[in-house]
Amino acid sequence: MSDMVEKYRREVCELHGELIRWGLVAWTAGNVSARVPGTDLMVIKPSGVSYEDLTPESMVVCDLDGVPVDEGASPSSDTGSHAYVYRRRPDVGGVVHTHSPYATAWAATGEPIPCVITAMADEFGGEIPVGPFALIGDESIGEGIVETLEGSRSPAVLMRQHGVFSIGKDAKAAVKAAVMCEDVARTVHIAKQMGAVEPISGADVDSLFDRYQNVYGQKKGPAGAASRERAGAAEGKDD
Amino acid sequence: MSDMVEKYRREVCELHGELIRWGLVAWTAGNVSARVPGTDLMVIKPSGVSYEDLTPESMVVCDLDGVPVDEGASPSSDTGSHAYVYRRRPDVGGVVHTHSPYATAWAATGEPIPCVITAMADEFGGEIPVGPFALIGDESIGEGIVETLEGSRSPAVLMRQHGVFSIGKDAKAAVKAAVMCEDVARTVHIAKQMGAVEPISGADVDSLFDRYQNVYGQKKGPAGAASRERAGAAEGKDD
Amino acid sequence: MSDMVEKYRREVCELHGELIRWGLVAWTAGNVSARVPGTDLMVIKPSGVSYEDLTPESMVVCDLDGVPVDEGASPSSDTGSHAYVYRRRPDVGGVVHTHSPYATAWAATGEPIPCVITAMADEFGGEIPVGPFALIGDESIGEGIVETLEGSRSPAVLMRQHGVFSIGKDAKAAVKAAVMCEDVARTVHIAKQMGAVEPISGADVDSLFDRYQNVYGQKKGPAGAASRERAGAAEGKDD
Amino acid sequence: MSDMVEKYRREVCELHGELIRWGLVAWTAGNVSARVPGTDLMVIKPSGVSYEDLTPESMVVCDLDGVPVDEGASPSSDTGSHAYVYRRRPDVGGVVHTHSPYATAWAATGEPIPCVITAMADEFGGEIPVGPFALIGDESIGEGIVETLEGSRSPAVLMRQHGVFSIGKDAKAAVKAAVMCEDVARTVHIAKQMGAVEPISGADVDSLFDRYQNVYGQKKGPAGAASRERAGAAEGKDD
Repeated sequence: MSDMVEKYRREVCELHGELIRWGLVAWTAGNVSARVPGTDLMVIKPSGVSYEDLTPESMVVCDLDGVPVDEGASPSSDTGSHAYVYRRRPDVGGVVHTHSPYATAWAATGEPIPCVITAMADEFGGEIPVGPFALIGDESIGEGIVETLEGSRSPAVLMRQHGVFSIGKDAKAAVKAAVMCEDVARTVHIAKQMGAVEPISGADVDSLFDRYQNVYGQKKGPAGAASRERAGAAEGKDD
Repeated sequence: MSDMVEKYRREVCELHGELIRWGLVAWTAGNVSARVPGTDLMVIKPSGVSYEDLTPESMVVCDLDGVPVDEGASPSSDTGSHAYVYRRRPDVGGVVHTHSPYATAWAATGEPIPCVITAMADEFGGEIPVGPFALIGDESIGEGIVETLEGSRSPAVLMRQHGVFSIGKDAKAAVKAAVMCEDVARTVHIAKQMGAVEPISGADVDSLFDRYQNVYGQKKGPAGAASRERAGAAEGKDD
Repeated sequence: MSDMVEKYRREVCELHGELIRWGLVAWTAGNVSARVPGTDLMVIKPSGVSYEDLTPESMVVCDLDGVPVDEGASPSSDTGSHAYVYRRRPDVGGVVHTHSPYATAWAATGEPIPCVITAMADEFGGEIPVGPFALIGDESIGEGIVETLEGSRSPAVLMRQHGVFSIGKDAKAAVKAAVMCEDVARTVHIAKQMGAVEPISGADVDSLFDRYQNVYGQKKGPAGAASRERAGAAEGKDD
Repeated sequence: MSDMVEKYRREVCELHGELIRWGLVAWTAGNVSARVPGTDLMVIKPSGVSYEDLTPESMVVCDLDGVPVDEGASPSSDTGSHAYVYRRRPDVGGVVHTHSPYATAWAATGEPIPCVITAMADEFGGEIPVGPFALIGDESIGEGIVETLEGSRSPAVLMRQHGVFSIGKDAKAAVKAAVMCEDVARTVHIAKQMGAVEPISGADVDSLFDRYQNVYGQKKGPAGAASRERAGAAEGKDD
């Protein structure tokens, strides 16, 4: 059990490096969490600590109400929203929050990112939806995430005038969804600056999404494929 | 005393690395200073020296009129503006100046950055204001900074057709404000390219700013919180 | 023979680092392949493996129908398209696929990149053409690539609402074409945002292309020059 | 004498790293040269060699007609244009050529970059001018550079539909001018996307340029200041 928690402390710590690497965060404005499988625990970034100062030990272990199980560092101020998602979506093993610039620009306009390129069909299965404007401090951000994603195959949601929340079967898949969300947010923004863009037809989106979620990548057992489909984000499946 | 100055030489030297890391500067066009607490001294970058050649020893110690206290290297040509801010704002412990591209583009248009995303409400407590056009060489830049920030909760000001000056309770907080200023300048610019953006309501901005300045981050004593609020920039508080 | 395959495993593995270095890929969304000269084999990235986990041994050797010759890792899901190109274009020794952001934005609009700067005339000999929208899974992407490039001197094609495929006499030349394609896609996009851009005249394009393909670079034998011209991409010829 | 040449081989080799560092070049599309003071020699990049493969030994020494003085590697295909500048401008000690994206976008539109921010007044003393469209292969590029810069204080020129040439008292100053040119090209482009931008008045530009060229930086002898002014680019003077 304790080994399990240590494993997720290390993984969550390391994955914050991907937020920097792919340009998703300024200063300390982004966080990753993971559910510890088979428990009612989650591991998340401590609040207000620089990425280069993060260590596995500094990660904060919380219950699924977002309450730290130990004395020590305060967890991310977004912990309540992550915890809400884990409570309502048992298939979700990882959550990521960023203010990545292009995706947050879409969030500022309140417009979903239309599915106009095949990479979006592959990863998001359609447009990336916009959730409600919600203040931090109660369950309204968590509710907005869960309700918006309920009607979508997308593993990412643009919370209006705020930023991105993404989910995955594990933390790495949620990070991947956050990376791809920023990538397509940028590409589609640039395309829109040049003129009209045309959504890919629903049938073609379905075909691309199905293939990407079920055929792409290295061979895995069927159980993995099933949970992957539910959580919406395919791990390591995109070359 | 001498140890204190050494500490700030090291800190100011290192913080220049953050200007490079976050893409705020080209060549040598940006500088950081710190007040040495409890003294009438400040530490600032030498003029015209490349960031990779900076050492703690090469930092220039000046009085609060901007005059170097030792023979040796000339201080940044912006020293007079930094010094003016320290004289008028005893709560300020750090000042940063950059020509970061998106923020300077806003400065070129003379338009304040509207507060349309929650990250701006958190860090800036509203829009990022525009100060007057002022030539280097007398107190007019310093006056413009102080007067513009007087009527604002923002720790950053866009000096018209020039660039960004940011302040903080210490140099790290001022660097953070400069980083976040460029980040939101970029995001809001991109959003504006896509269409109309709507400011967050005053009540919601107040709520977000209050929470971020007072609840967010690792626990600290109440005195720290108070000075933080005055200087406008919360150190290490943004995941 | 086996030494030859090892050489290409190493080269293809290393060239994926260039995709990261030049900002052409997010997560794992891009792949490089090389024909093994004098054989009916190609070497390509394994599907869904992160760039930092790639090793020469993990590269997948396939026949020119895209079927792996060994048990082991699955090849990139784009293998069929690469293989199609190698079958139809015996002069092509390398193929690259990316969703690089600016080029993919042009692909999303369905507009070719007009030849308005000399760097495009040098490398592409004219506009960068747009190929058809095609779903993955049969030969339609490969056909679209080959047919579109048949009527063009460009070593890169923008596959509509998808991304870039580039070719070269070897894998390095194809990577270079992908890098230059993104570079000019960005520059011409920025120019278009500022106002009208004017294509370079056909005679000037011919003159620039001819010089760049035949005079530029370090001296090489005439046979090399000939195959270079056919494959469309000059290796290492652009300072 | 031979030591002198070695010094410039090392310097020119190292300065190519700055082109990468500041994002001015894709693949190998940019080059730096230096005059060897007191001789009729220049040192320049070899043609078509990747930046990471450059060594001081691989740099090519040419006379001021651009003809290599030794057997060995071919010099950059832009050598003739560099050489022309050295012949006509004895005050110039370094020349740089890039296709940096924002500056090249301005070059594609044929519009000079207006002097709307103080950083431009400091470094360029006014707008960055546009030179003629000219094909490589004769003296027309060199002539275009020299004639355009003759009527300007700017150390950089946007050659129409081509890219940037910059000059300086030495190669480092020319590199600095190329870096600052791209920086202001980007900032002013972004500003223009947001609305009208207003040029700084001629008197204010003069005041800023004079101060920056003559007061800024670490103390130097008056002779250095004079040659600096003529070559247009102040070395290491911009924090």
